[in-house]
Amino acid sequence: MIGVVRVVTLADPSLLAEHGNLISSKYGLETTSRSIPDQPFGIHNDETEQIAVPKIIELAEQFEKDGAKAVVISCAADPAVAELRERLNIPVIGAGSAAALVAQGLGLQTGVLGITDDAPQVVKDTLGNLLTGYAHPRGVENTTDLLTPEGRKQAIEAARSLLEQGAQAILFACTGYSTIGLADVLRAELGCVVIDAVEAEGLFTWYAAQTLSVGANT
Amino acid sequence: MIGVVRVVTLADPSLLAEHGNLISSKYGLETTSRSIPDQPFGIHNDETEQIAVPKIIELAEQFEKDGAKAVVISCAADPAVAELRERLNIPVIGAGSAAALVAQGLGLQTGVLGITDDAPQVVKDTLGNLLTGYAHPRGVENTTDLLTPEGRKQAIEAARSLLEQGAQAILFACTGYSTIGLADVLRAELGCVVIDAVEAEGLFTWYAAQTLSVGANT
Repeated sequence: MIGVVRVVTLADPSLLAEHGNLISSKYGLETTSRSIPDQPFGIHNDETEQIAVPKIIELAEQFEKDGAKAVVISCAADPAVAELRERLNIPVIGAGSAAALVAQGLGLQTGVLGITDDAPQVVKDTLGNLLTGYAHPRGVENTTDLLTPEGRKQAIEAARSLLEQGAQAILFACTGYSTIGLADVLRAELGCVVIDAVEAEGLFTWYAAQTLSVGANT
Repeated sequence: MIGVVRVVTLADPSLLAEHGNLISSKYGLETTSRSIPDQPFGIHNDETEQIAVPKIIELAEQFEKDGAKAVVISCAADPAVAELRERLNIPVIGAGSAAALVAQGLGLQTGVLGITDDAPQVVKDTLGNLLTGYAHPRGVENTTDLLTPEGRKQAIEAARSLLEQGAQAILFACTGYSTIGLADVLRAELGCVVIDAVEAEGLFTWYAAQTLSVGANT
């Protein structure tokens, strides 16, 4: 089993399992998802990240005790990932670092598509010289806005603007883009490489799972 | 089609296609392999690397002209990879950086198993603080030596020594370990995460291929 930590409080089981289900369906891995308590608005600034870190550590340590073969911190800011790698004996995968490392592996100039005013620090640091620019869709304040035709149109326009700035790939610095399936939309509409943060965290987890025998499909 | 560059002259079609076939069978990608001319002993020091670089560039540029959707430089030293990323408009993936980036994605302390006296610079630089140590099997001078029972035993012992030094994962800094299938041997014998350089280059290529429509199996 792979433990998936959601950094927003999600009481609805289907919402809670969304990222885990994406990983399961794409990579054939068995996942269990748990969310941090008392943060219905998740992590949206330094203060809420600091409050979340000990909760994430507690969930991840419990996953290891429960026999998880790897833990995924499914947030593009990689909260608590560095701390957990010091504490756990299993792989700890963060969505933000995973996505940026895929860009590094391909060596493509990368435009980052987010939802806030700036890209997460871990994404900027890991991309280094490959970072072409950052954009967020006009008029989109949260992932719900992306579900509207106008929101989707603005997301495509934002991605297109990054390609015009010289990006060869688009990287999602928000896992909300994963749940709305924007990657395949951009792949079809723009024909560029798209690096989806949930897909990327799943990619590394799947690779490690070959050794760890947690239901990999190879 | 994915272009696979072999950095050693290989006249035998089955030897030439070995890495490409591993990538095809693991990831369902169509590959074409070509090897650099006039270097039957491949790259084994700075001088032979310098001689090889323009040949690798020529092969990779031809692959792009021939419609390859990505080019893999299948050598753990990543020869010509940086130069090619400046020149080509398609993803350029190197075996050494790919393997080390997988280690970064998992955040595991990593022992490097090679065949020469030291790990390739790109592997050391990319692993950074995650590099635990380096080892090569005693009495093994080339990959042919690994095919003997004694060579295989020494490779397992070298990997075990890295785990005893604190490594949580073993990374192959020689693609010769891929062709003899050592990864699955170590996974079974030692139960640790093993990062095989040919598997790793295939992993990133497969991910990019989702957009590039080159026969990915998703």
